[in-house]
Amino acid sequence: MPNSHLHLVRNAPTTGAPKYLYTWGSGRAEGNGAMKNLLGGKGANLAEMTRIGLPVPPGFTLTTEVCSYYYNHARTYPASLQADIEAGIRNMEQIMGYRFGDAENFPLLVAVRSGARESMPGMMDTILNLGLNDQTVLALARATQNDRFAWDCYRRFIQMYGDVVLGVQKGPHEDHEPFEVAIAALKHERYRCEIDDALLTAADQQELVHRFQAIVLARTGHAFPSDPWVQLRGAAGAVFGSWMNDRAVVYRAKYHIPSEWGTAVNVQAMAYGNTGETSGSGVAFTRNPANGTNEFYGEFLLNAQGEDVVAGVRTPLPVADLAHKMPACYAELLRVRTVLETHFRDMQDIEFTIQEGKLFMLQTRNGKRTAMAALKIALDLHRSGVIDWRTAVLRNPADQLDQLLAPIFDPHQLSTLTPLATGLPAGPGAASGRIYFNAERAVHAAAQGEKVILVRLETSPEDLRGMIAAEGILTARGGVSSHAALVARQMGKVCVCGLSALHIDYDHKRLRIGQSDFREGDALSLDGTLGHVYAGLVKTAPSEIIAGLLHDDPIARATEKFKDYQQLMTWCAEATRLLVRTNADTPEQTRQALAFGASGIGLIRSEHMFFAGDRIDAMREMILADSGHAREAALAKLLPFQRDDFIGIFTALDGLPATIRLLDPPLHEFLPHTHKQQLDLARKLDLPLEKIVQRVQSLAEFNPMLGFRGCRLGIKYPEITVMQARAIFEAAASVPNAQPEIMVPLVGFKKELDRQVALIHATARAVMAERAVTLNYTVGTMIEVPRGALTADEIAHTAEFFSFGTNDLTQTCLGMSRDDIGGFLIPYQEAEILKANPFATLDQSGVGQLIEIAITKGRRTRPGLKLGLCGEHGGDPTSVRYCHQIGLTYVSCSPYRVPVARLAAAQAALSDTTVAT
Amino acid sequence: MPNSHLHLVRNAPTTGAPKYLYTWGSGRAEGNGAMKNLLGGKGANLAEMTRIGLPVPPGFTLTTEVCSYYYNHARTYPASLQADIEAGIRNMEQIMGYRFGDAENFPLLVAVRSGARESMPGMMDTILNLGLNDQTVLALARATQNDRFAWDCYRRFIQMYGDVVLGVQKGPHEDHEPFEVAIAALKHERYRCEIDDALLTAADQQELVHRFQAIVLARTGHAFPSDPWVQLRGAAGAVFGSWMNDRAVVYRAKYHIPSEWGTAVNVQAMAYGNTGETSGSGVAFTRNPANGTNEFYGEFLLNAQGEDVVAGVRTPLPVADLAHKMPACYAELLRVRTVLETHFRDMQDIEFTIQEGKLFMLQTRNGKRTAMAALKIALDLHRSGVIDWRTAVLRNPADQLDQLLAPIFDPHQLSTLTPLATGLPAGPGAASGRIYFNAERAVHAAAQGEKVILVRLETSPEDLRGMIAAEGILTARGGVSSHAALVARQMGKVCVCGLSALHIDYDHKRLRIGQSDFREGDALSLDGTLGHVYAGLVKTAPSEIIAGLLHDDPIARATEKFKDYQQLMTWCAEATRLLVRTNADTPEQTRQALAFGASGIGLIRSEHMFFAGDRIDAMREMILADSGHAREAALAKLLPFQRDDFIGIFTALDGLPATIRLLDPPLHEFLPHTHKQQLDLARKLDLPLEKIVQRVQSLAEFNPMLGFRGCRLGIKYPEITVMQARAIFEAAASVPNAQPEIMVPLVGFKKELDRQVALIHATARAVMAERAVTLNYTVGTMIEVPRGALTADEIAHTAEFFSFGTNDLTQTCLGMSRDDIGGFLIPYQEAEILKANPFATLDQSGVGQLIEIAITKGRRTRPGLKLGLCGEHGGDPTSVRYCHQIGLTYVSCSPYRVPVARLAAAQAALSDTTVAT
Repeated sequence: MPNSHLHLVRNAPTTGAPKYLYTWGSGRAEGNGAMKNLLGGKGANLAEMTRIGLPVPPGFTLTTEVCSYYYNHARTYPASLQADIEAGIRNMEQIMGYRFGDAENFPLLVAVRSGARESMPGMMDTILNLGLNDQTVLALARATQNDRFAWDCYRRFIQMYGDVVLGVQKGPHEDHEPFEVAIAALKHERYRCEIDDALLTAADQQELVHRFQAIVLARTGHAFPSDPWVQLRGAAGAVFGSWMNDRAVVYRAKYHIPSEWGTAVNVQAMAYGNTGETSGSGVAFTRNPANGTNEFYGEFLLNAQGEDVVAGVRTPLPVADLAHKMPACYAELLRVRTVLETHFRDMQDIEFTIQEGKLFMLQTRNGKRTAMAALKIALDLHRSGVIDWRTAVLRNPADQLDQLLAPIFDPHQLSTLTPLATGLPAGPGAASGRIYFNAERAVHAAAQGEKVILVRLETSPEDLRGMIAAEGILTARGGVSSHAALVARQMGKVCVCGLSALHIDYDHKRLRIGQSDFREGDALSLDGTLGHVYAGLVKTAPSEIIAGLLHDDPIARATEKFKDYQQLMTWCAEATRLLVRTNADTPEQTRQALAFGASGIGLIRSEHMFFAGDRIDAMREMILADSGHAREAALAKLLPFQRDDFIGIFTALDGLPATIRLLDPPLHEFLPHTHKQQLDLARKLDLPLEKIVQRVQSLAEFNPMLGFRGCRLGIKYPEITVMQARAIFEAAASVPNAQPEIMVPLVGFKKELDRQVALIHATARAVMAERAVTLNYTVGTMIEVPRGALTADEIAHTAEFFSFGTNDLTQTCLGMSRDDIGGFLIPYQEAEILKANPFATLDQSGVGQLIEIAITKGRRTRPGLKLGLCGEHGGDPTSVRYCHQIGLTYVSCSPYRVPVARLAAAQAALSDTTVAT
Repeated sequence: MPNSHLHLVRNAPTTGAPKYLYTWGSGRAEGNGAMKNLLGGKGANLAEMTRIGLPVPPGFTLTTEVCSYYYNHARTYPASLQADIEAGIRNMEQIMGYRFGDAENFPLLVAVRSGARESMPGMMDTILNLGLNDQTVLALARATQNDRFAWDCYRRFIQMYGDVVLGVQKGPHEDHEPFEVAIAALKHERYRCEIDDALLTAADQQELVHRFQAIVLARTGHAFPSDPWVQLRGAAGAVFGSWMNDRAVVYRAKYHIPSEWGTAVNVQAMAYGNTGETSGSGVAFTRNPANGTNEFYGEFLLNAQGEDVVAGVRTPLPVADLAHKMPACYAELLRVRTVLETHFRDMQDIEFTIQEGKLFMLQTRNGKRTAMAALKIALDLHRSGVIDWRTAVLRNPADQLDQLLAPIFDPHQLSTLTPLATGLPAGPGAASGRIYFNAERAVHAAAQGEKVILVRLETSPEDLRGMIAAEGILTARGGVSSHAALVARQMGKVCVCGLSALHIDYDHKRLRIGQSDFREGDALSLDGTLGHVYAGLVKTAPSEIIAGLLHDDPIARATEKFKDYQQLMTWCAEATRLLVRTNADTPEQTRQALAFGASGIGLIRSEHMFFAGDRIDAMREMILADSGHAREAALAKLLPFQRDDFIGIFTALDGLPATIRLLDPPLHEFLPHTHKQQLDLARKLDLPLEKIVQRVQSLAEFNPMLGFRGCRLGIKYPEITVMQARAIFEAAASVPNAQPEIMVPLVGFKKELDRQVALIHATARAVMAERAVTLNYTVGTMIEVPRGALTADEIAHTAEFFSFGTNDLTQTCLGMSRDDIGGFLIPYQEAEILKANPFATLDQSGVGQLIEIAITKGRRTRPGLKLGLCGEHGGDPTSVRYCHQIGLTYVSCSPYRVPVARLAAAQAALSDTTVAT
């Protein structure tokens, strides 16, 4: 991997060049916690912890600008960088009193870690003990009088460096990593069994070093680099190179992280957790990241370096055990916990090392947490006066809020079941599915529509796609800080980990828990809130919030979760400017959405009513009619159904507005397409079969999305529009305070709207005269083809409101069919052409331009124009924020997305004035 | 029809109101020939003829602004209008010395005629003799001492007024007009045969007047209006009302005339062609409108009013016959002909009436003519120094130019055939087809793909749709000025009219010509240049221009038509700024287009080459490949074919540029879709059938237009792009001066283009190194989805040129599929939502906005950006003019449209500086 190495030109630093390196140590730091964009999250917080007096080994950060430079200059570095790095090392030497590469005295060894703006699994993470070679290892042994420690460090270093920098990894036909194979072989030769690594002697470790060096030579054709400076350049290069590796690209695509951000590199003096039983390493959260409980929560390993804890190879101990193993250290840790939460005013995720009884902090960051934990922590911090309510609202990631609405296991069924076993509850929630043992097969099964439980001994970044595809994740090893637990929490996946009763046989695709055997495809259920694992599929029930809101369940309403949720939504209502409406087609959906806090209906798809029961027959009769007269006769049959449906919806709305879209889909969607169905219809309507076949054929289209649909139907068949308008107005005349907003779809030309509006007004006048009532209604249009947006100034003369139909607007603006994008979406996301699926998150720089053109032009004609959005994007937090920014009146989304949209809208409003802390 | 009547409020004229009425007469006129927009064509030229001293009966024009007022104010009129009209009538009374409604002396009678900016068949045309009633008819008889004349006038007036103003027309179950039935009945009662109308006595006419009055009363419930002022208001209202009747709407839709223009109404003192054998009426062209010959060309009827000539009921006499029937009048007419051509500097279409030996001019206008006539007249006028060459170019309607390229009958076959009969050659060209006897069946047959000859006794505006659908039109009656001849010339339809040997039996759908009988669906061929009619289908041959340009035929090149065409194109080349390229996929097409004067290729659809011969197998193998490796192997088979094709095209171009679009259509278009074809392919490629079926299914799309196509193919399968680039560059390396411009299709995101361009440049470098040559090439993109246009500033960083793919850009901007627009195009055109089919004529106000955004943004990034257009619109004159105006570098169209586009481009350039005269 020569491209990943630092190839530096040893020039004097260029005058006026940006500052590429920031040091910290001994209570002073050039950077601080606010500089995450430049220093990455890890580097900024190491500086910040140093500044507030916490024990942090000295070091320096190479900024993210170095990474940008690297990718903008054909993977080369700024000329000044080598000199900067040398100065950075000299600074550490001075503070520590050791020298880098010293073969006589205690040598300065360093850890090299990546550190992007946001933590990113999948990138090169850590190289420890860098600086060791055949000479310095002896100096280290001498200085510490601990041969075993010195050779353990060296062996670990070669292993890590060989893997991630030199690319010595298992080949396509190998089952295990080559270094692991060598360790296993040595254990077998010398002990005839799989002893714990901690039991290996200094001689064992030394032998492994030699064998590892031989492996590196054989696999790469080069000896392992012995010059510490060469080692350092190689490690930094590997960090920058890993920014663009496959796993990092996949992760960024999923979380919409721009590749332009780049990563920083942190170089830090080593603290050693592996000097013996008075040393160790740990990770912890200042509160429980799974459920939010205010408890110190983490784990540690004695006589181990940091990567041992998260690797999941040895099962670590709960951090609370330190209280009796090293009481002074534990007290110091609790003090640090308080200092950090007070300083950062949020739950922290920390890494620490204890070297011979002394605590060193290696990292702090705002801890990733589940939605449930986020809600509880935010409200607890607010209740204890640490943050104000606005900050509390901002602390709940909107895109995770629907985790709170996810079903739980049905309490009645659960009471009849006994868990097979109980593991660590690492990701709360209820998941039932079929078990799969590797990512690839899990992805495949999920793509077929199966619900999948991914079962692994432990997970690693290679499993990421499988974890995304799975409903739940079950691991045999690894604690609450393991990769599985971390990723599951972040994604809101149900996860039970460290289930020691679980025995997996990958080769035969089966597992055993206690006495029960399961094969691939068998069903398991995971309760990630309690850690229970059940055989088979367990029925689910609505979450406490759904039960409380929709079913008025008093037990659910009494839970802390429900009350916290209600508090959050009360604050949202106070903060928001952008209203949230719902897409609903029935009174039931309307009531649900109102319970979630919708401000009305933003989209009734009026044709959905035509599919129920016998109505479809009248609809088909209408489509098969030969004349306007016959069409009117069929429409007359539909009128009462449609009117009654609207009465139901208006009644449920009780005075809130309802935007009703007139008939939109192509007519062939209503006709039967199989021979048998067509025959049935012919008999039912007493028509010749040929007539039906012929009509189906004549209505078939090459690109139905761009065909005879939307207002084009009402232009050709005005009687359809008249019937729908009559149904709406007759219903409105029957319900006090009904507020229909009639929306003409797919308008690209002002004259289209003019013609439809004339029919609607005429029908309104007729109904008002017949019923002797006055109706309040408005007529507007959907802006969903580019021409509608581009000519919005003309259209706004007629339209009293616009609703952006961003599904179709995205299809037409991008020339991409929502139904067909699967053919190229994945390569497009991996190439970062699309940062996100444009049908999930609005394409602001493309489709957004059309929306903004329409707003500007529309308001120029009609300053008070009401503006809404009713595509799928109405429930997507990023898109909701955008809608707030461009000044829409409301967004509309499906009932169950209303809470997400309300939170996102409130956060957008708060972000206008508040800076989150 | 109460809405069509003038309901005037008798108020004093409003101060400051626009002038709604313009008078002319006795050598003076308030208007002039330049005021066509306000006065309509007829009114403006009546004023102009009056000004230059020609004999025009006095009158006045109600302006087109009255029409606009009428439609903008719920069909009511300006308050001042009644007073204006009274003043206008007073002015005529003064000049003529008669009084309107005078029951004692010679009463002033008037003609009321419509007059839009452009002449429009289908609107209410003319009411003559208005002002007659039971009293004034007696005064007229007394004053002229001609009872028969007076009652003939009155009978005609009631008939015309009853029909077009009062709506007394045949009902749905009647075969004939009620007034015609009454005439026929009277003739039968009194003469037992169908005598000519001219033989009816005064008593007959008087009896008919009474019967007609009874018909009006019975059909409308009201007596025929006797007050001349009421009559006048009714007639004017009918003109304005007819602006929106069905036929006018259809006509405007076809000729893209905006309804906003409105029509004027002309009221003119009557001149009487029906006072006896020293009177008559005629129509004429100052030159032959069918072939352009400089001859006085027209026809007249003695003792007749104007409408008799065009109605085609009586077959008129050639105008030259006047030379011996009324020599003085004929000499005066020839003088007028010269005055008019000298004054208007163009061929004129005139109407005149001779009243007792005195000539009156009733209309002049620039005559409609065929493309052949347009070319000859323009060049003749230029040769005689009347117009300059720029004007001569502008005189050729670009959208008709391809008539000159239309096939003629094959001279060899023709020499073996004898015509069945010969009629008047009213629309030149050759047409073969199946005969149909009414418009509806002609339209239906044409929709099924048949070539149709419409056969009618005479045509009327009701036949318009049938005439549009037909290849050729054959009539038994009517001269060269009849409706059939007029419309045929305007539309460039082949037409033979006045074929007296033709006998039609509508009831049995058959006809006889001489001894030959034909039934509906039998074949006839019309030579509209000579007026010959042949039995059966006659083979066609290329026109003289095609033969001269493409086959270098010396006989063709010696024809006047060919030489005139060459002269025109030479002038076009001098005038033009906008270049015209061609869409071509083969060397043969390239050579054709270059012969037509193309400046290079604007679009090679590179995939067309994959369909020929065995290549499709390799293409299918590529699509069915499971891996990049297998795909590359299949692509390697395609490479030599593609390279050789490009060599052929580059060679034909001889240094002219060629824009090559990379693979664009969805892959499923290359796979077989029937079971049998799939089975054949499975055998051929030795693959399981299931694999082919599965691939076809997996590639099937809901909306292929918006699917996996364009550059999306090259993003997912980069090896396709590499193969195509290699084929292009290897070909370019083999042909001196090859100028490939590689075009990446369907780009909406800069990064799409970046990735493709990187592959193309890398391939170019490789080929240049292998062949040791330097290649001149550029890489650009098609702007064909709205997002591409909206982000053109970003895309232009990478693209060296843009070519607007207006087919797809129209589809996406309007959300209308070109293949599916048929479902609603007709109602859309009739409602004037679409003025034209947007896939034929560019939607400037919608799609044009995207194009202009792209130009502005693209040039902001790259000032010298080359801009082209390669949609179907490149061959449409209106769109070509637009492309000139917005500053494109070139348009590209199919080879046979190159002359049309060149003429349109030249005219656009000339219109920048020249005003046509």
